[in-house]
Amino acid sequence: MNPDELIPLERALALVLEAGVCLDREPIPVSGARGRVLAETVRADRDSPPFDRSAMDGFALRSADAMTPGAVLDLREEVAAGAMPRRPVGPGEASRIFTGAPIPAGADAVQMVEKTETLDAGRKVRILEPVRPGEHIRCQGEETRAGREVMEPGALLDAPEIGYLSWVGKRQISVYRRARVGILATGDELVEADQEPTGAQIRNSNGPMLSAIVEAAGGIPVYLGISPDDPDRLRTLVEKGFANDLLLVSGGVSVGDRDFVEAVLDELGVELKFRKVAIKPGKPVLFGSRGSTLIFGLPGNPASCLVIFHCLVQPLMRKMMGYRKWQAPVIRATLGKPVRRNRHRLSLSQARCELGPAGWTVEPVSSTGSGDLLSCVRANAMIRIPIGEGEIRAGEPVDVYLIEGFAFR
Amino acid sequence: MNPDELIPLERALALVLEAGVCLDREPIPVSGARGRVLAETVRADRDSPPFDRSAMDGFALRSADAMTPGAVLDLREEVAAGAMPRRPVGPGEASRIFTGAPIPAGADAVQMVEKTETLDAGRKVRILEPVRPGEHIRCQGEETRAGREVMEPGALLDAPEIGYLSWVGKRQISVYRRARVGILATGDELVEADQEPTGAQIRNSNGPMLSAIVEAAGGIPVYLGISPDDPDRLRTLVEKGFANDLLLVSGGVSVGDRDFVEAVLDELGVELKFRKVAIKPGKPVLFGSRGSTLIFGLPGNPASCLVIFHCLVQPLMRKMMGYRKWQAPVIRATLGKPVRRNRHRLSLSQARCELGPAGWTVEPVSSTGSGDLLSCVRANAMIRIPIGEGEIRAGEPVDVYLIEGFAFR
Repeated sequence: MNPDELIPLERALALVLEAGVCLDREPIPVSGARGRVLAETVRADRDSPPFDRSAMDGFALRSADAMTPGAVLDLREEVAAGAMPRRPVGPGEASRIFTGAPIPAGADAVQMVEKTETLDAGRKVRILEPVRPGEHIRCQGEETRAGREVMEPGALLDAPEIGYLSWVGKRQISVYRRARVGILATGDELVEADQEPTGAQIRNSNGPMLSAIVEAAGGIPVYLGISPDDPDRLRTLVEKGFANDLLLVSGGVSVGDRDFVEAVLDELGVELKFRKVAIKPGKPVLFGSRGSTLIFGLPGNPASCLVIFHCLVQPLMRKMMGYRKWQAPVIRATLGKPVRRNRHRLSLSQARCELGPAGWTVEPVSSTGSGDLLSCVRANAMIRIPIGEGEIRAGEPVDVYLIEGFAFR
Repeated sequence: MNPDELIPLERALALVLEAGVCLDREPIPVSGARGRVLAETVRADRDSPPFDRSAMDGFALRSADAMTPGAVLDLREEVAAGAMPRRPVGPGEASRIFTGAPIPAGADAVQMVEKTETLDAGRKVRILEPVRPGEHIRCQGEETRAGREVMEPGALLDAPEIGYLSWVGKRQISVYRRARVGILATGDELVEADQEPTGAQIRNSNGPMLSAIVEAAGGIPVYLGISPDDPDRLRTLVEKGFANDLLLVSGGVSVGDRDFVEAVLDELGVELKFRKVAIKPGKPVLFGSRGSTLIFGLPGNPASCLVIFHCLVQPLMRKMMGYRKWQAPVIRATLGKPVRRNRHRLSLSQARCELGPAGWTVEPVSSTGSGDLLSCVRANAMIRIPIGEGEIRAGEPVDVYLIEGFAFR
């Protein structure tokens, strides 16, 4: 295709995902695996439960002996969790048992302690209510059989998975490597946060912002600093950036005389896939590849830069890092204020989405434009406004992309 | 109130939040502040934009000079981003200007380069279309004025905030301290993941699971190990656990003869606020305080333990760590399979919630009960099933709590 073409976001995303391949695997300890993606098949090492176990504190017995309410049984022994029963339960007998303890041979049910009475100084027990065969017993293997696949590559490792990996005795597992993401800010006007801007200078917000969002997305940010609008200096830093899986260059991607990013990428052999996406904000966005490194030229305006990261970079990073799903969650919400459609570009508007008695409502936050990072600070979501004429009226349903941590912003 | 009372979840949550106080503040570098909560008021250090700046590559001019299409103006100089204009723009004059560069004195608009023609070897420019006064100029202070509050205590610091803090020159900020959370698993039957269980032993999944979920919630997990069902050993470990802001003890919280947690907490002077919550799974759950330490006795069954963490511990941690909002996000989804109500307890059912063409649908995952951690591995959400009779039919809307990372599980 012609990289000059203005392409829809869906097409841009397809091109980006097509270029992204899954990174290698690496072994890590389970204790540090939260948030990583599993790269191996995990099998149960034994049946789960590993033996018939009691689900209650009570008495293990033969259900046939407890058909008549008030049956009195001889007590054999006490089986605590972690201990093995030493004696079988014969007809007319019962054993005191605790939650998690193995069921003694001969017993086929447990009556909970609340429905019993101990007699004769603990030598006998009266069973006040009948029990069904199997009652309050968790049977060996009822959750899983030994050898069964319990987790597959692509599983995102959160708390339940970490617990389950420990349950099956895993201490080390194979996960997909985290993407290393080079971050380069460009612009003669930029100074870092620890410098006092003078004259026409401003502080660099995209560098720290991209580092934070790369980290939030599970990647390893590799900050390369600020390049002035100078092709030689830019070339050196971009080449350094090729050492990463992904390189994000912010600023300098328009077609102005001082926008050198595209020329430098071209000179260094980057094959450009597209340079214009029909999205608002964010239209000028470059994407290409060079060897195994994928490169984005992102808009310098911080709000545009964030939108493009959410829409294109983050899904790519998820694919590279082995996720099964790549797209941000979307909910429908009721629009609180009218929004204007754009005739040529899909709009993503920084917005606040709140849960009220009537469900989720959403309104755009005030913004002076795509340079207004403070509008993103106020937002917890983005409204997806399809291409079209006129406005979408208040009260209409719209699709809303939820931003990381949206419920707490 | 009587801690023996079976209380609704809402009441339990109110008691828990009432007991939780915000932790102290600590200074940290902005570069490591992602995911933390701001504990200070941040003010803009200067106007934003700090000067009238061009939003486009083009020509700065007096709009009155460009009323007639085709007006030809004398070129004065070139103003790049980061540079200061050296000359004012007088009548009949223009200066070449780049995005982000300061507007020269005298100019009141910018015409974009695409709507101009350079003439006379760059000494003159023809303006092909008129511009309005102010066009393509971002005025000094239009986003923010110096001194204005731009962030308040309670702001969750994600990428836009990290970018904005850098923008206003912050390198160090005050955030709320992360909660230190002691984690103690109890049970004679438990061994750690690196041991081979023998006889009636099983591996400890709650310890690693709670460590992971505490970390995911922004806390610092302090793992105390496994206590056998022995009051002396339990007492020693619980006392050690009091060194934390919060102590989670899993297992041993029922009323059985071998459930020592409550007795030990009582003996050590823990004031119990409740011990039974009308929730399924998870009814036996202890909550109390001792000095500035808050203590939970969580169910030993892993699915119950997770549910109680989500419903009570996580909101408490958020309150302690200075969040503005404490509750997990809830969406409405269409039930895919009928679910049964419980007459006495609010049910939270492990479920999968998926986005289809008709919106979000949700179904409970298969489970053999509250001991079945694998059911939680399959889930990405919890269905909230209010107390009641009979079942909720497929096709009805239900409330669904989204679990961390739900869109990618």
